[in-house]
Amino acid sequence: MPVETGSVPPVAERNAPAAEAMAASPVGKVLVVGGTHGNERNAPWLLEAWANPSRRLESSGLSICSVIGNPEAFDRSRRYRDRDLNRSFQPALLADPTRQELEVVRARHLLAAHGAQGADPCLVAIDLHSTTAAMGNSLVVYGRRPADLALAAALQRQLGLPVYLHEADPNQTGYLAEAWPCGLVIEVGPVPQGVLTAAVVHQSALALEATLALLAGARRGTLPQPSHLVVHRHRLSLDLPRNSDGSPAALIHPRRHHRDWQPIQPGDPLFQASDGATIPYIPPAGLEGEPVWPVFINEAAYGEKGIALSLTSRERWAVPPHWAEALCALASGLLTA
Amino acid sequence: MPVETGSVPPVAERNAPAAEAMAASPVGKVLVVGGTHGNERNAPWLLEAWANPSRRLESSGLSICSVIGNPEAFDRSRRYRDRDLNRSFQPALLADPTRQELEVVRARHLLAAHGAQGADPCLVAIDLHSTTAAMGNSLVVYGRRPADLALAAALQRQLGLPVYLHEADPNQTGYLAEAWPCGLVIEVGPVPQGVLTAAVVHQSALALEATLALLAGARRGTLPQPSHLVVHRHRLSLDLPRNSDGSPAALIHPRRHHRDWQPIQPGDPLFQASDGATIPYIPPAGLEGEPVWPVFINEAAYGEKGIALSLTSRERWAVPPHWAEALCALASGLLTA
Repeated sequence: MPVETGSVPPVAERNAPAAEAMAASPVGKVLVVGGTHGNERNAPWLLEAWANPSRRLESSGLSICSVIGNPEAFDRSRRYRDRDLNRSFQPALLADPTRQELEVVRARHLLAAHGAQGADPCLVAIDLHSTTAAMGNSLVVYGRRPADLALAAALQRQLGLPVYLHEADPNQTGYLAEAWPCGLVIEVGPVPQGVLTAAVVHQSALALEATLALLAGARRGTLPQPSHLVVHRHRLSLDLPRNSDGSPAALIHPRRHHRDWQPIQPGDPLFQASDGATIPYIPPAGLEGEPVWPVFINEAAYGEKGIALSLTSRERWAVPPHWAEALCALASGLLTA
Repeated sequence: MPVETGSVPPVAERNAPAAEAMAASPVGKVLVVGGTHGNERNAPWLLEAWANPSRRLESSGLSICSVIGNPEAFDRSRRYRDRDLNRSFQPALLADPTRQELEVVRARHLLAAHGAQGADPCLVAIDLHSTTAAMGNSLVVYGRRPADLALAAALQRQLGLPVYLHEADPNQTGYLAEAWPCGLVIEVGPVPQGVLTAAVVHQSALALEATLALLAGARRGTLPQPSHLVVHRHRLSLDLPRNSDGSPAALIHPRRHHRDWQPIQPGDPLFQASDGATIPYIPPAGLEGEPVWPVFINEAAYGEKGIALSLTSRERWAVPPHWAEALCALASGLLTA
């Protein structure tokens, strides 16, 4: 993906007046989470590998808190036990004392232990995921918090990573990364659930290392930003065509399989029916006349959510100075190792 | 894989004296099973697609009984609930009335319903599987029953499919296919657990269609055989190197990942340690000085079994006439649709 790198000056030069205001900022670590889904095994392996003895996790100089998101699910190599942990960080759900599912209890614990106001406070959450979709090495950002967008823009400038901006989807809420002042997901695929592969570990490591180095720079007031950020903004999700009993009536067309991030036009093959017939893409209501870019095509875990793929709009946003200012202000509170 | 196709005459010409003996043979259908593992979704989809309305399952003219091996696990998209159904067809286990795990009960039910002496008897079991390993379109045969080997040889002659001969592994027993007079596994990969893909469905369909057509031919006394069958004979399985707490200390080396069926030599990269160091292949006891061909490299479900890959010997066996005679004798009892 071509990304223009702009000539916006480093934030430190523009940010001096804000320095006083930072004095009262909270302090904390960077939270790095692997195994938020227990059957995504590569990130936990990476975090364990980096924890000893080379301590690469701390090579950025920042103080890192590294955790397995859902240890019980990880031990069973399942995505979750009672409900998806990465949909459980919903304030109303967490505040409801009658809700005691394993993952709700775990979400409360993670916030009490490592939240911004937790016992061992963390200001930024980097949540490492993998997917059966061919997402490559990519970022997922939830909503439009300036600090998140600044971090995503800096990563896109440095590594060219595509960004899926997830927002305005009432059916999918309560993501872990949203529950920290700054947070995003590093999403790598394709890789089967339950499978460790060197390539996915390596991609995750590259993105994590760059993220931590950028946060360390932001802590010192320097965050190189591109002039523009290319986002793939979530529009809506499509399910497979289904039979009356709920079973799939078609599957992803072979010419669409593993083609995440590539635009689809009306009439392009999308699904293949059980008799082999091609079912073309027809723009759903609200997307007529617009080009769209599918993502998360054939993610195994999304079947139960009724998602065969999500459609996004590819947009090129000018990067405003206040994004980096927000991240640098926050990062000024990051503790060093 | 180069496979010589021999000039062995069709069995019918050689088999005439056995015709009388067939009169007392049992009669039955062909059992086709998908979803013996509930998270292998492609075969169940294929069987449902073929069941209606095109009835391709019956295009061979044979009477087919098609079942979901483990419906409860399939509904949950899990390999199994209590124990692996495809290790539950152990006579001693099935005969033990104190064993009431879901899959033991299911194995008893499948035999009572569709076994050779069952209510709706089946003489041949074709068990459709998928794997996260790059096995391609392949066959798994258990032991050396002549009818199984004849069917595998005919399929290899026609489609070139590689054959993994599983035997002499006391840790892995009780396969479904062994519990019918003739049976084998069609194994297709790589595909993640829980993911439907057109390519895997298509490969499964090709192999299944050929199998049924060959059985229909065998029923009429005609089974073209190659002069030789190339088998990859199971020798032993290797686990990942592990830490003292049981967690993996290394993963499959990127230069070995997805290289099933390709020989490995002493000193070739096999694993990669968490610090990136290459761990070479060193022949285990009993395999010194022998070339070996790994299979089932990084199958997700085998982690819990302590299997990172299995090592095989590639052997070229002359195909004796009695294999096809055995299959034709059995197939003479197959019912037509």
